[in-house]
Amino acid sequence: MKKKWISAISGLAVGVLASAVFFGDFSPKQPTSTASAKTNAEKVYVPFGKKDEYYLFASGGHSGQLFVYGVPSLRRIRTVPVFSLDSATGYGWDEHSKKMLGGYTWGDLHHPAFSETNGEYDGKYLFATDVANSRAAVLDLKTFTVKDIISVPNTSGPHCAAFVTENTEYLFLPTRFAVPLGNKYESLDDYSTKYRGVMSAVTFDEKAQKLHIAYQVALPPWSYDLSDAGKKISKDWAVITTYNTEEATTNLEINASKEDRDFIVLFNWKELEKMVKEGKYDIVDGQKVIFPEKQKGGIYLVPVAKSPHGVDVTPDGKRFIASGKLAPLLTVFSFEKAFKAIENKDFAGERNGIPILKYESVVEREVNPENALGPLHTQFDDKGMAYTTMFISSEVVKWDPNTGEVLDRVPVQYSPGHSVAAEGDTVSPDGKYLVSLNKLAKDSYLSVGPSHPESMQLIDISGKMEVIQSAPVDPEPHYGQMIKADKIKTINVYPKDESNPDAVYNQKDARIVRKGNEVHVYGIAMRSKFIFDAKAKRPDVIEVNEGDKVFVHLTNIDRDEDITHGFAINRYNLNIEVQPGQTNTVEFVADKAGTYPIYCTNFCSALHQEMTGYLLVKPKQ
Amino acid sequence: MKKKWISAISGLAVGVLASAVFFGDFSPKQPTSTASAKTNAEKVYVPFGKKDEYYLFASGGHSGQLFVYGVPSLRRIRTVPVFSLDSATGYGWDEHSKKMLGGYTWGDLHHPAFSETNGEYDGKYLFATDVANSRAAVLDLKTFTVKDIISVPNTSGPHCAAFVTENTEYLFLPTRFAVPLGNKYESLDDYSTKYRGVMSAVTFDEKAQKLHIAYQVALPPWSYDLSDAGKKISKDWAVITTYNTEEATTNLEINASKEDRDFIVLFNWKELEKMVKEGKYDIVDGQKVIFPEKQKGGIYLVPVAKSPHGVDVTPDGKRFIASGKLAPLLTVFSFEKAFKAIENKDFAGERNGIPILKYESVVEREVNPENALGPLHTQFDDKGMAYTTMFISSEVVKWDPNTGEVLDRVPVQYSPGHSVAAEGDTVSPDGKYLVSLNKLAKDSYLSVGPSHPESMQLIDISGKMEVIQSAPVDPEPHYGQMIKADKIKTINVYPKDESNPDAVYNQKDARIVRKGNEVHVYGIAMRSKFIFDAKAKRPDVIEVNEGDKVFVHLTNIDRDEDITHGFAINRYNLNIEVQPGQTNTVEFVADKAGTYPIYCTNFCSALHQEMTGYLLVKPKQ
Repeated sequence: MKKKWISAISGLAVGVLASAVFFGDFSPKQPTSTASAKTNAEKVYVPFGKKDEYYLFASGGHSGQLFVYGVPSLRRIRTVPVFSLDSATGYGWDEHSKKMLGGYTWGDLHHPAFSETNGEYDGKYLFATDVANSRAAVLDLKTFTVKDIISVPNTSGPHCAAFVTENTEYLFLPTRFAVPLGNKYESLDDYSTKYRGVMSAVTFDEKAQKLHIAYQVALPPWSYDLSDAGKKISKDWAVITTYNTEEATTNLEINASKEDRDFIVLFNWKELEKMVKEGKYDIVDGQKVIFPEKQKGGIYLVPVAKSPHGVDVTPDGKRFIASGKLAPLLTVFSFEKAFKAIENKDFAGERNGIPILKYESVVEREVNPENALGPLHTQFDDKGMAYTTMFISSEVVKWDPNTGEVLDRVPVQYSPGHSVAAEGDTVSPDGKYLVSLNKLAKDSYLSVGPSHPESMQLIDISGKMEVIQSAPVDPEPHYGQMIKADKIKTINVYPKDESNPDAVYNQKDARIVRKGNEVHVYGIAMRSKFIFDAKAKRPDVIEVNEGDKVFVHLTNIDRDEDITHGFAINRYNLNIEVQPGQTNTVEFVADKAGTYPIYCTNFCSALHQEMTGYLLVKPKQ
Repeated sequence: MKKKWISAISGLAVGVLASAVFFGDFSPKQPTSTASAKTNAEKVYVPFGKKDEYYLFASGGHSGQLFVYGVPSLRRIRTVPVFSLDSATGYGWDEHSKKMLGGYTWGDLHHPAFSETNGEYDGKYLFATDVANSRAAVLDLKTFTVKDIISVPNTSGPHCAAFVTENTEYLFLPTRFAVPLGNKYESLDDYSTKYRGVMSAVTFDEKAQKLHIAYQVALPPWSYDLSDAGKKISKDWAVITTYNTEEATTNLEINASKEDRDFIVLFNWKELEKMVKEGKYDIVDGQKVIFPEKQKGGIYLVPVAKSPHGVDVTPDGKRFIASGKLAPLLTVFSFEKAFKAIENKDFAGERNGIPILKYESVVEREVNPENALGPLHTQFDDKGMAYTTMFISSEVVKWDPNTGEVLDRVPVQYSPGHSVAAEGDTVSPDGKYLVSLNKLAKDSYLSVGPSHPESMQLIDISGKMEVIQSAPVDPEPHYGQMIKADKIKTINVYPKDESNPDAVYNQKDARIVRKGNEVHVYGIAMRSKFIFDAKAKRPDVIEVNEGDKVFVHLTNIDRDEDITHGFAINRYNLNIEVQPGQTNTVEFVADKAGTYPIYCTNFCSALHQEMTGYLLVKPKQ
């Protein structure tokens, strides 16, 4: 309390000083206050004409989407559709996105992860996974749109991912739920023998803009949770936490917490890559699957306090930190010690054919902040200091992984899951900001009924930690990554693609082509009209027969940024958008005879309201 | 510029004064600065522990949803799904919402409107319309959920609605697009004779929680735009703007702006109600439709500058204001003059059988703010002053409707469509705040690719107008209403409904009942487990045969606010939520044999991660 007052006083003192200076000089410049004199309001306020310093990409959980915020303002700039339909952008209606979604209409987006170069976020791509329908996606940050989605066989809920290696060689997707390989029907009585928790190693082909499953590892039938890739000295390694190593098949609330210890899975992906090259795998459901009980080496277990929710590698790559979510302990493990234990075969038996390293051979220290409960996730600052969210005691604890010393604590509201530091998962975090992703807001915001929003809180970590902004969040952030704004280079207009047979760049080329009962419209959208058939009496009208299959290929020939057009047909349940320069296709069956207005859904100009046409569907006789 | 400096100086002076007071008193209270001394940052900052003063309900346009913001912070508190699927809340998957959506997966939500009592927002319900698929919806503000959706026949795009009468007797839904009645197939060559622009009068049965179309009016084949209900002396009347009275059928960009004048439709809903009671209507597509050319009286036209985007009634109900969006003029009309003109049959001919009142008999004054272009929408403050958005000159103009005097102007960024004042559409607006809903943000925010967010800006209208906050917005706000926070009374928990046969409130009653190939699961969700079959070896497992039709009736028996549970099945593309106390049903066909994890999607407790189960689908032989 006292410290708060000292800061308030110093704020006022600076005010007095500034005003003294100010009264002596009436030239028109703002009295600049020093950073320390700024109120919290001023610290987070980004007035018109200024921009936020960081992008925060937060998972949208079971919304299936990605939320993009500015930091420090915590204003939500964009909702990027990834795994769920989004009519605002026509996502799931245009041919490309419809095909990518593959019939699924929703997903549960958990962990977003930036592509990395030399352990730094490179601002080029973002990967994300779907726990609900077991998929992975890649977004291009030049356009903030999804380029590819893959379904991941043998897996149920890649919840602990994506996390990427230092040069984006792989993203690893460990599964949350154990299932029989191929999702086959098997009795739960045979859980320990027939079920598996699969980890998938996925590569991204930047040229083809495609994701590809390189191989999978059939781990024991446990649940896997937040994971991390090694850095620097540990760059060939990665770590995964586990829970339910009890292999309980019902009432996990009780049965998955019986043992005192679960495990961290420590694996060397260079070794696994070698195994795959040497053909040391089985093919299951079309995938190359490594069975650790058959192919020894490269995978080890490290005991850890029960039910950990995450494991995090320090920026220097020397340590990994994990915490039992039901225990008060933060545990610091040493990669060097682990490597030595592996070399010396310093094992305490094995589970499912995987050697268990002795806890005491790998642990460096246990940290027990007084009365701190429910440690979940750790992020880091520019000095290597650690920030751990405490789910149960609702706070963030700052501590030194080198010494175990607890340095600072700040309450958050309430029940923080993950947190995200500025450039926090890189080899060189920025410090300055930490955002706490809180699971419960309680009465923090105006009530919106029995179900409340979640909450994000921005913590200034440049000095003594202080919560400086709170923002309500749609369901439901699980993880985030925060990147320096200048690292992301967007494009303003899609480049012309003369090789695209669906694109039309000249008004006079707009045409409607019939092939049997298929009608192809090669149309143009421009301020402020549609041209579907340049030669027709009414160029903005599409006339077809009931039952025709209609393909509308629409090119936006406006080449100014933000002049996006929409294309919707009344009562036909469809909407697509074409961003400046873009060509998109929507396909539908004209199964309702009659007269249906067509209109531009995305505001484009003063005459946007006039950007309309008609679909006339001639009834069957 | 000078005024800004005086304010900055006075701010500092107060700081000096406050610090002087402060140093003499070390008791633990914050030095309170006066309102005038607040920076813009402080004016909009709502720290943890405080709440926003107003709810802003903004249309989400072609997202199909409603966005709920707090004012002054402009933080988005909730996305309420209305016309589109929303996996975050299971909207479109649970039986109730699935049935309401009727197979549609998206909508284009335009104008939200609160229910009113005596011309004041009563905080009970909110109505909204769907331009894409011609629907209307009602939300209960106790729970922030949709209670009913109706499809509106004979109509294409009720864009100009909803707007409600002083005691919510009706909400009127005029259509944006003209179509043949019943959406029948008719040549556009017959547009003037066969097409119509229909206005629907809808009632809300609060007890049954149902919307109902009372009657429709077959207006001429024009486009209708933003409308308003009368107040006080004009309470039995309503006004609608029109465009394309040219009845153009192609290239509206040019052809719908040929004439200098369009019309305002002025109608007396008490008269129309009487006509319906007297049977003066035809039945078309199941609806009672009044044809003005056959049933005279109650509907009149008032000429107005071409292509107006809206018409607004002053809080005292004495005037209505409209502006040609392509003209610089604001036009003030008098209801009293209009009533007198009607009484005196002071007509200048008619269109489609509807009498045209003489412009000069109804107009009170034309206002022409210098260099102001593109007037669109007018809101009001507590002193009856008007605030008009200028789309082309990107500003808000404050003026006095009593005198026409221009009082103040403030630039906004950029191209404002509508604006919303605190309690702005009531008989007694609050003043204080106006939010400008801007169509283009240009480079106001961090770039998210070729398509930018829209932008809302909060204007302090308590003194000289000043933009004090800017917030990016998802596509695409068209209208909003702002209500005092204390008017909305939410519930925390759904009440028990023992009469609901699908509800299960006691754990021991959870059961799975098979009827032929239908399987009914009467299950419970609670912290932190599912109980589907209390008597089973594994109560959290559902086992069915391939091809079974499965109904999961799930009751959340947790009765603490915000303890919402989700229910998803891996790879089965479904998710529902049950809010505290709520029962919901999801239905699916078990068409994929195998083993599929079930899990709680909505964070609920420290053991949320353990709240899982399995669906086992036994393959067909």
